[in-house]
Amino acid sequence: MTAAGTAATGSADRQVALAVDVGGTKLEAALVRADGTVVDGTRSRRDTGPAATFDSMRAAIDAVVAHALAGLGADDELVGAGVGSAGPIDREHGTIVPVNMPEARGFDLRGAVRESASAVRGAEVETVFAHDGGCLALAESWLGATQGAETSLSIVVSTGVGGGFVIGGRYMPGASGNAGHLGQVHATPDLTVEQVASGPASVAWARTQGWTGERGEDLARDAQAGDRIARAAIERSAQTVGAALADASTLVDLEVVAIGGGFSRVSDDYIDLVQAALTATAQHDYSRRTRVVRSGLGDEGPLIGAAALVLR
Amino acid sequence: MTAAGTAATGSADRQVALAVDVGGTKLEAALVRADGTVVDGTRSRRDTGPAATFDSMRAAIDAVVAHALAGLGADDELVGAGVGSAGPIDREHGTIVPVNMPEARGFDLRGAVRESASAVRGAEVETVFAHDGGCLALAESWLGATQGAETSLSIVVSTGVGGGFVIGGRYMPGASGNAGHLGQVHATPDLTVEQVASGPASVAWARTQGWTGERGEDLARDAQAGDRIARAAIERSAQTVGAALADASTLVDLEVVAIGGGFSRVSDDYIDLVQAALTATAQHDYSRRTRVVRSGLGDEGPLIGAAALVLR
Repeated sequence: MTAAGTAATGSADRQVALAVDVGGTKLEAALVRADGTVVDGTRSRRDTGPAATFDSMRAAIDAVVAHALAGLGADDELVGAGVGSAGPIDREHGTIVPVNMPEARGFDLRGAVRESASAVRGAEVETVFAHDGGCLALAESWLGATQGAETSLSIVVSTGVGGGFVIGGRYMPGASGNAGHLGQVHATPDLTVEQVASGPASVAWARTQGWTGERGEDLARDAQAGDRIARAAIERSAQTVGAALADASTLVDLEVVAIGGGFSRVSDDYIDLVQAALTATAQHDYSRRTRVVRSGLGDEGPLIGAAALVLR
Repeated sequence: MTAAGTAATGSADRQVALAVDVGGTKLEAALVRADGTVVDGTRSRRDTGPAATFDSMRAAIDAVVAHALAGLGADDELVGAGVGSAGPIDREHGTIVPVNMPEARGFDLRGAVRESASAVRGAEVETVFAHDGGCLALAESWLGATQGAETSLSIVVSTGVGGGFVIGGRYMPGASGNAGHLGQVHATPDLTVEQVASGPASVAWARTQGWTGERGEDLARDAQAGDRIARAAIERSAQTVGAALADASTLVDLEVVAIGGGFSRVSDDYIDLVQAALTATAQHDYSRRTRVVRSGLGDEGPLIGAAALVLR
């Protein structure tokens, strides 16, 4: 993606990237090697949350960046920093415009990571910034379930719903770095995909039907035990995601879609239900052919994806 | 896009491309110069239609290709052939899979143009194939209303609804060459954008409301004269297209959308109505900012776009 010039100066097996991932509830950092492995002992996290401010974000970044860089070995070559953040972002200016952290809107995240890392290193650290959905898609394409695909979308179904595109091996950022926000596409004229199909939305819907559990894990357990409403809530989520993916594939012409995130594991057949809904809903042969697969990433996926911004 | 090696051998102002555009009712060809102008006297057309067969397609292509190539000057350098076709297509195999020409499904359009042109020239003519929506988007980005935009979608609203993406100056084909089929995205769970918002769909809806005209031109005239139903039919189309574009921009993050096609001229404010619907419907600031503009192309747009496949 970038840093090719830098990368050419050292042996690939000593190259490492600083990876930073910022979400609505936490931010974390680690060092990631050129083979996609996280360097032992370099990963740490701090809470963010709705009350996050510019100052609290800066302090948290300083802490996790310093911790990660302390793990850099004498022979390691730092090729740069990759930063992923929950959207929306403003990629041109390096800022975040999060919906759920009002005091942090406009925060120069890219600049904060660059300054923090450069201060520790005593030299400018090249820093590349992207939407976390784009990072996820890059990681999935590099080491996960969409390897080898020319055109893929990778999403999470969790508290939110969203993802990113990889086309020809490259992350597709869109005009402002926000391509991949599937969750804010409409499922009905009044509701978005996220408002119908996320974990919390599925729990809330089940409760309106008389179910009395409280969390996605409760839905999973009760559906497994034969509860009709819990099962219907899961099917409703998968149907909505599948229909949205059918339209996404009609529009963008996707070879494969990878799905991860906590709520995608609510049932063993969640991916199959999404595939069935996509195939039943898509309007052209080419979009009906789009494959839906389970994510091949673990919980290090977002950091690996952020690292891929400078390693790949 | 391609043919860079070939292009380097000659003076740019003598370079010409053979352009072929295939639709559901006609196919045509012309020579197009490196500045995007059609060479006088080289454009001709033949009917296709629902009864088209492999043989009738081949004969029609032979005729329009021979006519176009007869206009090649002694100093002109033919850099290749660009072929656009109504979708869906199979870009890998060069074939068309049209919904409305059942006997022509699987026809090797790219091969037919290459054979026809190569036979006339006595040498292999490099031939590049794309969806006509992609050609349109390329032409719009080259010489039309999306010039300078990093990420654009160009569509037509006519008998059908569809288009293509240009990202970073390049046409984005998708996995099988079909990215841009906005018309087959769902407007409601039961109806696609095209089934609600095309010219024929708008006429049909107005008739269910008691209007008695028969064509898009009638709708335009009656709405202009103050007919309430005719006006409502136009607003309904624009609302549907705008809402679909809002979701498309949320998903793909578009800077600008250009709209052409006969039905987009049904009222002077059609583009404004689409923009208003997009802005009102989009769920993020970045997608609300997407600009909707009128196409900057004339009726040569599809041929210019096909030529751009080898000239750009």
